[in-house]
Amino acid sequence: MKRIIFSVLLLSASLLAKAEDGHQLWLRSHQAAPVKVVTTAKNSAVLATARQELQQGWQGNPGATVTLTLRKDKAIKYDGYRISPTGVQASTEAGLLYGVFELLRRQQTGQTAQADLSNPSYEYRLLNHWDNPDGSVERGYAGQSIFWRKDSSFVTTNRDKVRWREYARANASVGINGAVINNVNASPKILSAEYLARVKAVADELRPYGVKTYLAVKFSSPALLGGLKTSDPLDPAVVKWWQSKAKEIYRQIPDFGGFLVKASSEGQPGPQDYGRTHADGANMLADALKPYHGLVMWRAFVYSPTDKDRAKQAYNEFVPLDGKFRDNVIVQVKNGPVDFQPREPFSPLFGAMKKTSVMPEFQITQEYLGHSTDLAFLSTMWEECLQSDTYQAGPGSTVARCTDGSVYPQKHTAMAGVANTGLDRNWTGHDFAQANWYAFGRLAWNNQMKSAQIADEWLKLTFAGATGSAASATTDSNWNTNFLAPVKQMMLDSREAVLNYSMPLGLHHIMSATRGHYGPGPWWAPPKMRADWTPGYYHQASENGVGFDRTKAGSDAVSQYHEPLASQLNNPNTCPDEYLLWFNHLPWDFKMKSGNTLWNELCAHYDKGVQQARQFQRIWDQTQPYVDAERFAAVQNKLRSQSGNAVQWKDACLLYFQQFSHMPIPATVEPPMHTLEAVIADDMRPQR
Amino acid sequence: MKRIIFSVLLLSASLLAKAEDGHQLWLRSHQAAPVKVVTTAKNSAVLATARQELQQGWQGNPGATVTLTLRKDKAIKYDGYRISPTGVQASTEAGLLYGVFELLRRQQTGQTAQADLSNPSYEYRLLNHWDNPDGSVERGYAGQSIFWRKDSSFVTTNRDKVRWREYARANASVGINGAVINNVNASPKILSAEYLARVKAVADELRPYGVKTYLAVKFSSPALLGGLKTSDPLDPAVVKWWQSKAKEIYRQIPDFGGFLVKASSEGQPGPQDYGRTHADGANMLADALKPYHGLVMWRAFVYSPTDKDRAKQAYNEFVPLDGKFRDNVIVQVKNGPVDFQPREPFSPLFGAMKKTSVMPEFQITQEYLGHSTDLAFLSTMWEECLQSDTYQAGPGSTVARCTDGSVYPQKHTAMAGVANTGLDRNWTGHDFAQANWYAFGRLAWNNQMKSAQIADEWLKLTFAGATGSAASATTDSNWNTNFLAPVKQMMLDSREAVLNYSMPLGLHHIMSATRGHYGPGPWWAPPKMRADWTPGYYHQASENGVGFDRTKAGSDAVSQYHEPLASQLNNPNTCPDEYLLWFNHLPWDFKMKSGNTLWNELCAHYDKGVQQARQFQRIWDQTQPYVDAERFAAVQNKLRSQSGNAVQWKDACLLYFQQFSHMPIPATVEPPMHTLEAVIADDMRPQR
Repeated sequence: MKRIIFSVLLLSASLLAKAEDGHQLWLRSHQAAPVKVVTTAKNSAVLATARQELQQGWQGNPGATVTLTLRKDKAIKYDGYRISPTGVQASTEAGLLYGVFELLRRQQTGQTAQADLSNPSYEYRLLNHWDNPDGSVERGYAGQSIFWRKDSSFVTTNRDKVRWREYARANASVGINGAVINNVNASPKILSAEYLARVKAVADELRPYGVKTYLAVKFSSPALLGGLKTSDPLDPAVVKWWQSKAKEIYRQIPDFGGFLVKASSEGQPGPQDYGRTHADGANMLADALKPYHGLVMWRAFVYSPTDKDRAKQAYNEFVPLDGKFRDNVIVQVKNGPVDFQPREPFSPLFGAMKKTSVMPEFQITQEYLGHSTDLAFLSTMWEECLQSDTYQAGPGSTVARCTDGSVYPQKHTAMAGVANTGLDRNWTGHDFAQANWYAFGRLAWNNQMKSAQIADEWLKLTFAGATGSAASATTDSNWNTNFLAPVKQMMLDSREAVLNYSMPLGLHHIMSATRGHYGPGPWWAPPKMRADWTPGYYHQASENGVGFDRTKAGSDAVSQYHEPLASQLNNPNTCPDEYLLWFNHLPWDFKMKSGNTLWNELCAHYDKGVQQARQFQRIWDQTQPYVDAERFAAVQNKLRSQSGNAVQWKDACLLYFQQFSHMPIPATVEPPMHTLEAVIADDMRPQR
Repeated sequence: MKRIIFSVLLLSASLLAKAEDGHQLWLRSHQAAPVKVVTTAKNSAVLATARQELQQGWQGNPGATVTLTLRKDKAIKYDGYRISPTGVQASTEAGLLYGVFELLRRQQTGQTAQADLSNPSYEYRLLNHWDNPDGSVERGYAGQSIFWRKDSSFVTTNRDKVRWREYARANASVGINGAVINNVNASPKILSAEYLARVKAVADELRPYGVKTYLAVKFSSPALLGGLKTSDPLDPAVVKWWQSKAKEIYRQIPDFGGFLVKASSEGQPGPQDYGRTHADGANMLADALKPYHGLVMWRAFVYSPTDKDRAKQAYNEFVPLDGKFRDNVIVQVKNGPVDFQPREPFSPLFGAMKKTSVMPEFQITQEYLGHSTDLAFLSTMWEECLQSDTYQAGPGSTVARCTDGSVYPQKHTAMAGVANTGLDRNWTGHDFAQANWYAFGRLAWNNQMKSAQIADEWLKLTFAGATGSAASATTDSNWNTNFLAPVKQMMLDSREAVLNYSMPLGLHHIMSATRGHYGPGPWWAPPKMRADWTPGYYHQASENGVGFDRTKAGSDAVSQYHEPLASQLNNPNTCPDEYLLWFNHLPWDFKMKSGNTLWNELCAHYDKGVQQARQFQRIWDQTQPYVDAERFAAVQNKLRSQSGNAVQWKDACLLYFQQFSHMPIPATVEPPMHTLEAVIADDMRPQR
């Protein structure tokens, strides 16, 4: 018998060594201790999942008994839970599952499992997949879609099912309870019977993990798919078509979550095509879903080429509609007023719509932050947004509190994240991009969490013991000193590093258009291109200075913010440096708080970004003894490319802007190694 | 009258400002003082040139009288001269011209014009132009040929003539007295009547500057052009064909210089095709030219794919022929035994052929040293070769002394440089590449000159007063401190910088083949490619180590060198670091003289090269007040590209070799910003 156990351990160790390709995410196999699970709850798929997770992953006292108790409790909100070292109590089965994952996480990260209560900040915690029916993923950098594929789309294989369950399990482990499984730039055929059959197949696999399935719909589906003459939301035939479509969906997927809609936005059809408002459109769909408790998430991402300041438009269109939406509509608002830039001030819609359910939309996939090449831990960006004070109901009216029901009595609360998953073996392309999926789930569960804690958890779960030796376990102080501490710091610094080398001081939207928003492109301005899609619209660089004047003297976007913020942002001497060129157009010799000229400060930021990227390489290089060979090499290679990207950003932007500043690059800054001409030529090459 | 002079001065200043595009080389226009030229010599074209130069460029006492005296003098050798502040004496008219240029140079560089005697180290000082009849230039990086063009090749325009005279004047100003105006990979048609007419046209323009015209000929011309059945050098019809061709040439160009021949080399036809020796081939041509005092320069650049060590072959083939060449044959030997690498030990043929005229061939065009993109002042490389001690006739038998007649009684002495000129406005692509043309001429005149002095002269001639302000004149101490001193140091360090970032420690021939020898390519090895054209043949990298074993235990190339050199090079502990991997294959952990492992030393060299390239940028950036805008920006851009090239070399080579060393890149070294895969992919792109 001893011999057999020994063999099993060996086998397990060798499997573990083989399996370190990142596919297991933060849920890596562990040798489990025996545990007895006791429950009074009725058996169900979700409960079975909870029981199985406990048995697969128990690291507590061998032979311990864990009790799962399903019981209402006024202190327990939504899918919240109470945990103790020996049990979980929740109001819902999903709550029990989340409690189990929390118990196991504490064991694996070496925390003492004290008694604790945890409620989610948001009722709905969703991933938005910009996955197209042909299998491609818009802004996806980790391979093709896990839901759709070009060929034989309608045959659900066992491999599909395994992958969907793995996906759902990862979501459940961090509290994500919904997935919009197709692109917001939606194809009407997603609502056809053939596609709905596959949606059902997905939903069936996600359900045991408490993850509901949602769809993004095209507003003109009644005409395009249904053959109606119009898609006017006030047209009775249109209303009926949607009612009938809802019925068809819910017949197959009784717990279907609802619709996500991008309407009258970037060329997508919408109610305005028929002279109706966003509320008219959203409410019509909400009415169709109401009988089934379905939700409509209506995106506020709207802007038009004729507007003088794109940053103002969503506010201008949606604030007048406050209070006019059905109670099963949630207005989904991107964190910033433009478009997922590496740094934006929070959208002024947060806190301004007081009688409407408003949910933040974050982007997990790194469209503007280096794709799956650059390491950027986005938790700090989201934390920054959530903790931003809107002042809308006095000091302390943070974006977090304005959206989670603390400040306004929202009917529904939710948070969405645009997913970064694909068929790549490690799901997210970059091994560290997994941390963004993880962090999104953790922040959607608890919008007060600190990024340092999230990084700490994720690193322990993802890398501890990766070489199979005791020296790389959380219990080893060398591991904590030589791996955990420096790598955590690297993660926490990483988004600011990307900002430094790409768009510091409030610069935004100056990336390459030709290379899919990777790398610099402040010069990009093809003839006849709509101005608000060209970088020049945003940086406004000339010999007079740089930056977008959004003060009262300019576009007056500052006035969309509540005082004292509006006044603070309106004045370049009080506007925080990180938003300086977002709100101000300033001369190149503007004197910064540091005493530097604006030009020298800009140079210093770009240079710092490059140095930071190199520092990350050095940090990672030192971790080799603690990381399995495959992930070590993969991350090392990514960091090399990131350094190259950083240098290209720095050189290109400094040389481009220098054409206007006519000021020398300070000698303290690393001299450019690209000529501007070479970077532009590289930018014009076909996409990588 | 005063007013007119004032206007002329203004005009001259504005012309100067406009003209700073590098086209005037080191011969920039100066406001000349009046001078009276007196001479007893008969009038001639060269004398007229000398007189004109004096009058155009006199910076001495206004109204002074300068005497040009043509008189034999035992102390004056070849085209040497005596100068005094008021006169030049020489044995030849060319000597008078060179003396005039020296007088003017001393005036322009602020030297006191003491009485002095100067004799050239070599009788023949030639440029070899690898220019093809279609106008392209093999290994040319400064535009198309100045001699040939694709269309209307046979119409000599006035523009052609002006350019050829400008070219000849530049040559004369540094003592160059011959030009081979077509590629050594010669087309037979160069000897056709049509082409010879254009050769005559060129010769007519070069003649007034004392520059003779030569041609490179294809050994199989009798068959290819003459229609003979063979080109066997011992065939009477072949002998007759060449005799008749020589007669045809000299009828048109009585002072024609002779032939340069690349035979039985890299696929070129040669005497070995007919079972004859190099001597048989060279002598036959020499006999044909003898009646006209023409020369044959016969290249020793031979190697075959079957040989075990390419570096040994020229020696093996040519040493047995020592003493078998006619006295109007000069064997032309590249500085190193392989092929113009950034650093090679001197060719063992120097000093070994004691009964044959042997001339060094240097490469002015930067085939392996960064084309016209990277700044590399090659004077230091040539000085290093010329001052290398062969020990062939005891200590002090330097390459310089073994080739200039000091050690052996050579009938003829000569030095050739492969030119870097083209139709680019500044002649050489990179403004600083002009310095290599200049330095070649100066060293061919005086093979004991120091690179520091050459750089000093060239910088003063080329940049002093470039902004038209007093602050940028040689007489201004700020100019000396802020421009001359740092830029001279940059030049003197530049070739070592290129070595550091490309092929340090004796590495060689590991450049990209696909990008025309620009950038790294240690991996290049297409299927079926002859081994001695692939980098792996030269670096021999494996897990066991790196370097080409040319010790007695290896190819025994060391034995081609005279003692004590052979023994010194044979032992890695006495072999100088700069030749270490040229002569030795050593393990990665070999302990260097510095105490470093070989791997760490290699990393440190590559990193140093990158830092040096960046330092050059900083130095140049500081010179902006002293340089006209056009040349400042042009050089600044080149230095940027060079930095990029340096980083690519460093990253590519370290990552490539690391695959074998399995050793970490030290943290003191800047981490790579390219992945190996990316550099290889870039290398596979079509040529830039």
